[in-house]
Amino acid sequence: MSAVDVPRQWRSALPHLDEPLPPDRTPLSSPDDSGVSVSLPMELVRQSVQPREHWPIPAEVVDAYRAFRPTPLWRATRFEQAVGARVPVYVKYEGGNISGSHKLNTALAQAYYYRRAGVRELVTGTGAGQWGTALAAACALFGLKCTVFMVGSSLRRKPYRGTLMRTLGAHVHASPSSLTEVAQRPETSGNSLSLAIGEAVEYAAHTDGAAFCIGSGETYSILHQSVIGIEASEQLDELGVRADAVVGCVGAGSNFGGLALPFFADARTAGHEPPLLLAAESSATPKLTCGTYAYDRTDATGTGPLEAMYTIGSSYPIPDSHAAGLRFHGAAKILSAMRGRDLIAAAAVGQVEALEAGRLFTRTEMVLPAPESSHALAAAARLAAGTEDGTGRLHAEHGVLVCASGHGYLDLGAYQQLMDGELADEAADPYELLRAVSGLDRVDRPAAIGGRS
Amino acid sequence: MSAVDVPRQWRSALPHLDEPLPPDRTPLSSPDDSGVSVSLPMELVRQSVQPREHWPIPAEVVDAYRAFRPTPLWRATRFEQAVGARVPVYVKYEGGNISGSHKLNTALAQAYYYRRAGVRELVTGTGAGQWGTALAAACALFGLKCTVFMVGSSLRRKPYRGTLMRTLGAHVHASPSSLTEVAQRPETSGNSLSLAIGEAVEYAAHTDGAAFCIGSGETYSILHQSVIGIEASEQLDELGVRADAVVGCVGAGSNFGGLALPFFADARTAGHEPPLLLAAESSATPKLTCGTYAYDRTDATGTGPLEAMYTIGSSYPIPDSHAAGLRFHGAAKILSAMRGRDLIAAAAVGQVEALEAGRLFTRTEMVLPAPESSHALAAAARLAAGTEDGTGRLHAEHGVLVCASGHGYLDLGAYQQLMDGELADEAADPYELLRAVSGLDRVDRPAAIGGRS
Repeated sequence: MSAVDVPRQWRSALPHLDEPLPPDRTPLSSPDDSGVSVSLPMELVRQSVQPREHWPIPAEVVDAYRAFRPTPLWRATRFEQAVGARVPVYVKYEGGNISGSHKLNTALAQAYYYRRAGVRELVTGTGAGQWGTALAAACALFGLKCTVFMVGSSLRRKPYRGTLMRTLGAHVHASPSSLTEVAQRPETSGNSLSLAIGEAVEYAAHTDGAAFCIGSGETYSILHQSVIGIEASEQLDELGVRADAVVGCVGAGSNFGGLALPFFADARTAGHEPPLLLAAESSATPKLTCGTYAYDRTDATGTGPLEAMYTIGSSYPIPDSHAAGLRFHGAAKILSAMRGRDLIAAAAVGQVEALEAGRLFTRTEMVLPAPESSHALAAAARLAAGTEDGTGRLHAEHGVLVCASGHGYLDLGAYQQLMDGELADEAADPYELLRAVSGLDRVDRPAAIGGRS
Repeated sequence: MSAVDVPRQWRSALPHLDEPLPPDRTPLSSPDDSGVSVSLPMELVRQSVQPREHWPIPAEVVDAYRAFRPTPLWRATRFEQAVGARVPVYVKYEGGNISGSHKLNTALAQAYYYRRAGVRELVTGTGAGQWGTALAAACALFGLKCTVFMVGSSLRRKPYRGTLMRTLGAHVHASPSSLTEVAQRPETSGNSLSLAIGEAVEYAAHTDGAAFCIGSGETYSILHQSVIGIEASEQLDELGVRADAVVGCVGAGSNFGGLALPFFADARTAGHEPPLLLAAESSATPKLTCGTYAYDRTDATGTGPLEAMYTIGSSYPIPDSHAAGLRFHGAAKILSAMRGRDLIAAAAVGQVEALEAGRLFTRTEMVLPAPESSHALAAAARLAAGTEDGTGRLHAEHGVLVCASGHGYLDLGAYQQLMDGELADEAADPYELLRAVSGLDRVDRPAAIGGRS
């Protein structure tokens, strides 16, 4: 019996940053030249730029949230024992809804706003498939058509992700597909999320009544995810405990941002020191630990604006891995700005360590985490056990709060490979890292403030 | 915000039956002759025979339940619209835990009692894999070794069920295996749950410190499942509504019994007419609609006792189907006794109708039901729409409560076949039905009371 209810307001961290996010830049080939028009509902534009802290959640979205929120938070005592934790570990679990992840939090909000704007079809790209599933579910609920381009290698590895989206009524295409021009270009890499997104952008631009939408990384989607952190904060209060470290995995950053930023806003409002905010990324896409803060594009088409982000370069050849949701070259604008100011910390985790943590978590806590979420659990385990960092800079005294962002029922192939001893880590290639960012314009100002560039 | 808490007591319907269940009979080859010894913890024996209504749930089991209970109950308004319902449909969803089904409710209780009795390893047979997964999770929690024999055709169709059990630390064998004598006998059918159970019985009997246990159909496991109905009753009260029909799918009968029997006990205690209790079975295994009430064995070894059950015969060649959890030849003793007295009704549902209902439920309610659960949803849809029964005997005036007993994330192959138009119904073969029950001893007394034989 908990008194915690579904939040009625989202909470933004924008008013608590010292200055606005660096504005986007128009790329050399502008959107207008390419015939691609972006039709973002005005409310989503406002949520991306206005330094307003509290945003009312539309009643229809609150109603939809009630089907799966509040999500559970518990102290993972058996996991603590198994990893030798010195401090409590609290888990916030977002995998209990049909999409299997936190992505439904923003999918429902976006479907609501796009429908209100008169859109009849939403088109998107998806890597691991959680976002596509979430959008398919949200479109089914709000009566919109849904078209999904899913990274082909991921779809072939997890065909039932496609089945689930189709069961929800969505049209699913393996990317690269034969439906778009961008997929036929020789220079676009064959199997990345940025190409799937590029295909979706192009397809939406040429389809009547359709709009492209995106699941992660946009400032508004991180705002929608703030329900995670708002609930978690109330649930910790209800337990009478506190966490001085908050951990989430980062693809572009929406579950981490959704969990962590309300704690940041809360501390800034109260004039306290914020907790350690630790972003757990894949060692195969180490944008926050090895990347550069620079203007880069968000997808392979190059038609969208250039954004200021920590990036390993949009042309970096990301190795295949089981954590498909982390296979993205850049971090969200707002997280990148905070990283540039040393307001968030980062740790890179390999997939073997991650899945071992996930297996341990399954056996001890009776929840099967997605490979992506297992990266956060591994980082939380390091932190709780005091083994994260030789410098002592990363530590927790009171407790670690970690987001288990999704379930792994459609990722069991990864666990099977782990148990068969067939899993290896794919470390980033230093030469390729250097090459892929070499032409990018760096963002200067945070370097002057925070000493990082 | 709900005030409904995890139940502290299970509730038995035994005191509300007019007479005790027919006692088991010793088969021609007795357990002692075969060297098989059954070591059932005394508390489980008591729960099977004592006509006591309320049983305290051990504190450790209540604690374990808290990880996933209370489970959600909601009015499925969008599903109602889609099926043309004339009365409300309330759904109780048991698929949110790691086992993906209600089976964890009894697995935790059994692991607790067996461990207290000094057992170090639990051995079982599983069809669809939900029970094996539940037992694997419960054994991980209570520190027991776990060995599972899974129906081979089911394991090959859903290899990730095996992976999930192994991730939880269990040892998983495809049945028929090379580990037991019973699997080598020419007369045992190749791919049935009763053979998997027979293998588990034999394996446990020859393994030190091990005990065989079973997930469904035993009177004590139905008692453990009563948490479903107890919670549902409180949740309906909290909503200020009532259901005059209660529907669940029946393999052996534990989720249906767990949901329905507390409503029966409640009505008998209050002196009211009980709601319509409707068992939804697979048309491929129609024991309650086309079977015979007779003494039959529960598994292919024939070494356990003969039980009084509605059965299509333990030698009936059950056709392959996606609802592997419903592929069992008999119904639980307590449900069979109630069926013999016309206290429960039954409807047979084909897998095509079931999966269509499941797909509709997925799109409207954002929950992906298991194929087994979809049989209950299809029967509930018939009842709510008034299309179940031409006679008017089966109907609901106020509302239909249905148990969605499990999720379908590991059954997406079935939905894919449905969408590809490759799914057909497997109706029972009348000649085989007659043959398989022809040698059985019928149970007489309920026939004298209820007019059914």
